Amino acid sequence: MTLWGSRFTSPPDPRAARLNDSLSFDRRLWREDIDGSEAWVAALEAAGLLDAAERQLLMDGFTCVRREFELGQFIVRDGDEDIHTAVERRLAELVGEVAGKLHTGRSRNDQVATDLRLWVMRACDATADDLAGLVTAILTLADTHAAAPMPGYTHLRQAQPVTFGHWLMSHAWPLLRDRQRFTAVRRATAVLPLGSGALSGAPFPIDRRALATALGFEEVAPNSIDAVGDRDFACGFLYAAALTGVHLSRLAEQLILFSSEAFAFVELGDAWATGSSLMPQKRNPDPLELARGRAGTLIGRLAGLLSTLKGLPSAYDKDLQEDKKPVFEARDTLADLLPVVTGLVGSLRVDPARLRNAIRPEIFATEVADYLVRKGIPFRAAHALAGRAVRRAAELETRLADLPPGEWSALSDQFEADVKSCFDLDAALARRAAEGGTAPVEVRRQIESARRALAGE
Amino acid sequence: MTLWGSRFTSPPDPRAARLNDSLSFDRRLWREDIDGSEAWVAALEAAGLLDAAERQLLMDGFTCVRREFELGQFIVRDGDEDIHTAVERRLAELVGEVAGKLHTGRSRNDQVATDLRLWVMRACDATADDLAGLVTAILTLADTHAAAPMPGYTHLRQAQPVTFGHWLMSHAWPLLRDRQRFTAVRRATAVLPLGSGALSGAPFPIDRRALATALGFEEVAPNSIDAVGDRDFACGFLYAAALTGVHLSRLAEQLILFSSEAFAFVELGDAWATGSSLMPQKRNPDPLELARGRAGTLIGRLAGLLSTLKGLPSAYDKDLQEDKKPVFEARDTLADLLPVVTGLVGSLRVDPARLRNAIRPEIFATEVADYLVRKGIPFRAAHALAGRAVRRAAELETRLADLPPGEWSALSDQFEADVKSCFDLDAALARRAAEGGTAPVEVRRQIESARRALAGE
Amino acid sequence: MTLWGSRFTSPPDPRAARLNDSLSFDRRLWREDIDGSEAWVAALEAAGLLDAAERQLLMDGFTCVRREFELGQFIVRDGDEDIHTAVERRLAELVGEVAGKLHTGRSRNDQVATDLRLWVMRACDATADDLAGLVTAILTLADTHAAAPMPGYTHLRQAQPVTFGHWLMSHAWPLLRDRQRFTAVRRATAVLPLGSGALSGAPFPIDRRALATALGFEEVAPNSIDAVGDRDFACGFLYAAALTGVHLSRLAEQLILFSSEAFAFVELGDAWATGSSLMPQKRNPDPLELARGRAGTLIGRLAGLLSTLKGLPSAYDKDLQEDKKPVFEARDTLADLLPVVTGLVGSLRVDPARLRNAIRPEIFATEVADYLVRKGIPFRAAHALAGRAVRRAAELETRLADLPPGEWSALSDQFEADVKSCFDLDAALARRAAEGGTAPVEVRRQIESARRALAGE
Amino acid sequence: MTLWGSRFTSPPDPRAARLNDSLSFDRRLWREDIDGSEAWVAALEAAGLLDAAERQLLMDGFTCVRREFELGQFIVRDGDEDIHTAVERRLAELVGEVAGKLHTGRSRNDQVATDLRLWVMRACDATADDLAGLVTAILTLADTHAAAPMPGYTHLRQAQPVTFGHWLMSHAWPLLRDRQRFTAVRRATAVLPLGSGALSGAPFPIDRRALATALGFEEVAPNSIDAVGDRDFACGFLYAAALTGVHLSRLAEQLILFSSEAFAFVELGDAWATGSSLMPQKRNPDPLELARGRAGTLIGRLAGLLSTLKGLPSAYDKDLQEDKKPVFEARDTLADLLPVVTGLVGSLRVDPARLRNAIRPEIFATEVADYLVRKGIPFRAAHALAGRAVRRAAELETRLADLPPGEWSALSDQFEADVKSCFDLDAALARRAAEGGTAPVEVRRQIESARRALAGE
Repeated sequence: MTLWGSRFTSPPDPRAARLNDSLSFDRRLWREDIDGSEAWVAALEAAGLLDAAERQLLMDGFTCVRREFELGQFIVRDGDEDIHTAVERRLAELVGEVAGKLHTGRSRNDQVATDLRLWVMRACDATADDLAGLVTAILTLADTHAAAPMPGYTHLRQAQPVTFGHWLMSHAWPLLRDRQRFTAVRRATAVLPLGSGALSGAPFPIDRRALATALGFEEVAPNSIDAVGDRDFACGFLYAAALTGVHLSRLAEQLILFSSEAFAFVELGDAWATGSSLMPQKRNPDPLELARGRAGTLIGRLAGLLSTLKGLPSAYDKDLQEDKKPVFEARDTLADLLPVVTGLVGSLRVDPARLRNAIRPEIFATEVADYLVRKGIPFRAAHALAGRAVRRAAELETRLADLPPGEWSALSDQFEADVKSCFDLDAALARRAAEGGTAPVEVRRQIESARRALAGE
Repeated sequence: MTLWGSRFTSPPDPRAARLNDSLSFDRRLWREDIDGSEAWVAALEAAGLLDAAERQLLMDGFTCVRREFELGQFIVRDGDEDIHTAVERRLAELVGEVAGKLHTGRSRNDQVATDLRLWVMRACDATADDLAGLVTAILTLADTHAAAPMPGYTHLRQAQPVTFGHWLMSHAWPLLRDRQRFTAVRRATAVLPLGSGALSGAPFPIDRRALATALGFEEVAPNSIDAVGDRDFACGFLYAAALTGVHLSRLAEQLILFSSEAFAFVELGDAWATGSSLMPQKRNPDPLELARGRAGTLIGRLAGLLSTLKGLPSAYDKDLQEDKKPVFEARDTLADLLPVVTGLVGSLRVDPARLRNAIRPEIFATEVADYLVRKGIPFRAAHALAGRAVRRAAELETRLADLPPGEWSALSDQFEADVKSCFDLDAALARRAAEGGTAPVEVRRQIESARRALAGE
Repeated sequence: MTLWGSRFTSPPDPRAARLNDSLSFDRRLWREDIDGSEAWVAALEAAGLLDAAERQLLMDGFTCVRREFELGQFIVRDGDEDIHTAVERRLAELVGEVAGKLHTGRSRNDQVATDLRLWVMRACDATADDLAGLVTAILTLADTHAAAPMPGYTHLRQAQPVTFGHWLMSHAWPLLRDRQRFTAVRRATAVLPLGSGALSGAPFPIDRRALATALGFEEVAPNSIDAVGDRDFACGFLYAAALTGVHLSRLAEQLILFSSEAFAFVELGDAWATGSSLMPQKRNPDPLELARGRAGTLIGRLAGLLSTLKGLPSAYDKDLQEDKKPVFEARDTLADLLPVVTGLVGSLRVDPARLRNAIRPEIFATEVADYLVRKGIPFRAAHALAGRAVRRAAELETRLADLPPGEWSALSDQFEADVKSCFDLDAALARRAAEGGTAPVEVRRQIESARRALAGE
Repeated sequence: MTLWGSRFTSPPDPRAARLNDSLSFDRRLWREDIDGSEAWVAALEAAGLLDAAERQLLMDGFTCVRREFELGQFIVRDGDEDIHTAVERRLAELVGEVAGKLHTGRSRNDQVATDLRLWVMRACDATADDLAGLVTAILTLADTHAAAPMPGYTHLRQAQPVTFGHWLMSHAWPLLRDRQRFTAVRRATAVLPLGSGALSGAPFPIDRRALATALGFEEVAPNSIDAVGDRDFACGFLYAAALTGVHLSRLAEQLILFSSEAFAFVELGDAWATGSSLMPQKRNPDPLELARGRAGTLIGRLAGLLSTLKGLPSAYDKDLQEDKKPVFEARDTLADLLPVVTGLVGSLRVDPARLRNAIRPEIFATEVADYLVRKGIPFRAAHALAGRAVRRAAELETRLADLPPGEWSALSDQFEADVKSCFDLDAALARRAAEGGTAPVEVRRQIESARRALAGE
């Protein structure tokens, strides 16, 4: 049973029907489909198209259909080409002919757009929560190691000392931005298409504002043609997911490095690592690699949907059916990844001694330049002198910190005995106390500020 | 002259230098680079690292450099590997050794992030203005044709009648959303990296809040490592541009169709069409095709930058240099396209008679079903009866509107003489008066609402 | 039961295990996994690592496992983290301890690469066949309409007359190129990784050439590190699929247009069109829209995998697990689409009269220019004169073909009475007889040539 | 002067003209445009449309135009909207009215497709050469270090020992595949569009086979509509470039890691590293980071063009103008990157002692398992025992190689005194002598085989 066959002389070819059918994946919208239909029934009654008894009959039917889905007892029949058809077909079996009134003034075009928006709104909420969980785990660890020195890297070369807490926070803020982004996507999604019909609007006096309120939408779509063909919200969701994926991949990349034998800054808990079928000694960071790898897939999903939308006429075209799978999969990807990365971060054993010992003396070269700056030498000249000191140390095969006094003074008479103070790690950290800097006191303030952001203050 | 050579024993290989140099494209940041440096000079003075005389000398130097760029008289020298180097080198030529104090406490890492953010903030403003221009052109045309009937299409098949103004507005709203999106990107971009140094923060007491205010930023980046490695704002800009491109491509696709010989609903002004080198009769809609085609390129730029960012460690890596070209090109693409599409829309000659005459009687089949609904027949049954009427008309090779009374009553005794009223075009339009519908009165209200949105009310 | 747990002190967290598990999708590789393992057993025996009895025991076990899969009776157990684990676990249940010898000298790294390559080789063959089916359908229709005139379009504007067969063939050739591309991908895929171990090669004297022959591979991977980390073949498959998607989208776009009311050149069979839940009259070209829309998704899958691979170290990283889903889905997409588009093309009802009548006289403007060229006037001047004739006809509101003789001669005395011959449709077609042109005789030759290409001649 | 203005009543709006103009980038096709036009002149003479004197005049004109371009003296005029217009305009200035005969039977549609194909054919050759250069540099280094042991990594964890030469070769083979791919793209590109006219074929007896031969094409495009709208070759080029980018990014990632302080396996020559404007000690691997980063951009270009092509009708649409920039830029990217990476690889200072010393004893765990296998224990049980040995060593805080004999025998009586032989590095390497394995003798054979592949044997 299709909803549309009466003007056709032959049924769809089975292969065409199979291509066309979407129930295998849009079945996930059953809750939203029933929510939307219940609200529609109320709107039809308010518009005088159903009487109270009919309304009650339909609502009872929906209660029953809903329970069947909840219990996993809903049975799909031949001809159930999508979730909308399946629900309406079952409703008709349960309540009889009055089910035929449900679709009055409505089209699957506005119905599916409403269902998917509702789903995305809920997925945004869930993802924002998952992100909050991960950020909380990072904050907890950052708090513990707010003052633990480690080499800071640019270009994967030791650059300047930072604290481990500060480094961890460099991954918390992007995730906090992601959380805000999902909140913004939710708001942009909460614009109701229902009541737009196929494309020209409802031909009956439907109160769309009341519908919006009933379903938790904030606005009513202002143009019925746009309402049925607009998938900006789906793109927005995929963009937020892709960027979250990129942020996870950056955190993952560094944790993979830092937990490798070469760095050995952190160790993953056994519950979050995996072994090898061949090599008995292996402890592989599979969850981190999957987080990194799936960023690529998330990027592809975004590019794919944007490409699908390119060049479509406004209003509904069947191409739009390609919107659901990437949206579902993007949410699934994040629903799988975020709790695992959260658990993994919580399991990390940090080795503060390794972190501190990894710092090489050349990392203080900027301190040497700044030492000269404080004596009034322009930074550019100071930088050149410090660079020459680095080179001289290399020529002498000694460490910068061990350069003999005579070598320092040969480079410049501004280098005096107190040049050794440049290699004072804690002082170097403490100096970075401007807002956002790595001074432990500032890192603690930063963690506090992130906590407030998380709490929505 | 590089800014960093003193610890090296040999100069860069010329091919490596050429690969590395970015002046050919980051030169566009000269204005932002000077703005940022001037603010930095003020901050250094406030921190006691420059005295008033030095500050004045540097500011005079910048005034001069700025003028050279404005007049196109700035001369690039060998070793000017990027805009930052070029400006500082020139400054040193003009003001001497004091220029060497400029880079105190600053790194190119926080400098370039600041420059690019400033540039993107301005590009967002300009793009929002360009979008407002295009929306205004659409509103003007929509107002004129708010009540002009035309076939509404789904699946590129005649679906239900709408008005031309309503159809035009289905393209205005997405562009209004784009405008909001650029405003949101601007806000997210206005977070100041300056004062983050290479990655660990400023080692001098720089007042970053004052810097932010001076440069028009709204916030201060909360973590110095994140500040130098975060390119979310660039992705946000590319995403907004890609989605704008998609919206333009959808408008373009339909205008290409509607201005073709087969539809002939509208005609482009001669100033916005082009001819053929071979076929003398051609009038091609090149600007629309370029708008459609460049949507693909914009999507690719977004996918490209996201892919570049995937898996990078936090803090600065040179990979980030790939951020500028796509951002510049995306703005250029929209700066080229939007005014042209605006002019083209303004030039459209609409043919209301063609629009109305294109409507085929079968388009009223939904009205026939709704006619039965109003008689109490459930919609599902009404739909089936209307579908059978369509099929019967096809069998008789007549138009649905011309189906003889006997045929109607043979289908159902609910079809009475007044079934003819279903084919009343103006009534069908007027019925769609729920919010967002195509009823002319509602279309006019919609245009008013868009005008208010444009005015920021 | 995992294959690797003995050095761990705690089991995987269930969420990490779920993230990590791939059986839900790599289960599709069961046939290839068993094929590969059977060949491996033979290689182990040849290398003296199994005796004949052990080999037989294992082979009997595989026969049994294979049958379970074929009959849908294979039962998944907890701990079956992927198809390789599941098969080996079941084998052990069936044949006991000797199953523990199966993984000798092998790693899942070379095993999974082998399985997926085998799968892709078979998918290439199947897709090439599907493409041949579609091309055959196009050839059949092109043959029927090899001489049927229609307007040829560039920029969706009438450009020059062509034949419907010629237009159809413009979609056959790209699909023939796709078929060749899948054949080339198959060849590049048929390079055996098995025998590469985890990354360093087999530590036993395995004869990899014999393995390759047994499994139908053409070459042996020359470097064991590359062998386990190379996914070029998967990218190649996705690229071929994406380009096929683009070609289908181009065919689909034009068939959607040509079957619309505005063109009405062709009609889809009822079995390949769908209706509307709301609008009883609709006949929507859903399969074509899905073909068009899924091109976007296919493009996204390619971009996604390339992005996943970007920046990975050589050898195996878990990120590579993201290779399978897009490959499977790309094949599924084409396996769904190609037969449906084939059936749809076969069902097309072409309306030769509509095609011919759609041709507008201005389409002959190039003939007018060429008419002058044949009189010795340089083409550039001839083009300008023909253009002026078009403009004059527009001013007079007449059709170009009906321009009075006086008007022609006023433009140029080279226009004589025989200028009317320019509007002879059949002559215009027949003139395009250079190779690849639209002259019916040449179109027939072209169809013949495509038939030979299809037959592999 | 445009080539098409005569039927228009007003000139193009300047903004539309600027949008439309492509000379700024397609100017690069000047050589191919002149080559193509010279061949076309010969074809016109052969078809009787030019006499010998006219032909000579035109050829002399082209010689002159060509020289102007070669000397950088070609002057662009207003109205030169693309390279084709510019060349024809200049030709007319030089040779007068006969230049008007050049475009006889030709359209810019087949002309631009021909020009771009010629350009891509040459770009494929050049890129294949650049790739050969890089592979040669890798082979040279691999030869030197064919037997130098190092830790082999999977999941960035020490897995099994390999040789540095073997690891280097794992990057050579993908680049050899890229070289083959560009050769295949060249072949697929060498299909001549010229003689297809605007879309319907040449209306004069042009010998397209002779044209193809003259221009170095291998085939003649079989369908004129397809010929002008097919951009598969451009996609093929972008795909080959993107995959090359991915391969470079993988090599770059590992060289960035291996040259970092944490690994210190290799050091970059000073000529291939860069410093920091702030931190005097830095030696950054900028070229490698750019290689890694640009892989993203290359992926984006491919996705962009595929997306642009999606849904276009066959034959020419202006959207196709978006093909040139990404193709040019992709070639430029590789032309910049490949020689630099070649030079950088040539400059690498490898530290064999660091490589060997980095190997940790746990890496021999597979040898321990294989030791048991050789005693007849099934691999799966052997793996479990070796894993328990690893865990026991960790509990005792000793290295696996130092586990006391009593501990070994406590795990299994199969562990005898000779278990120590498992930790013999050279023996472990030598055992991997199956084809493609890391045994030095096999690595040398592999290098020889790659040399032959490079030489085309």
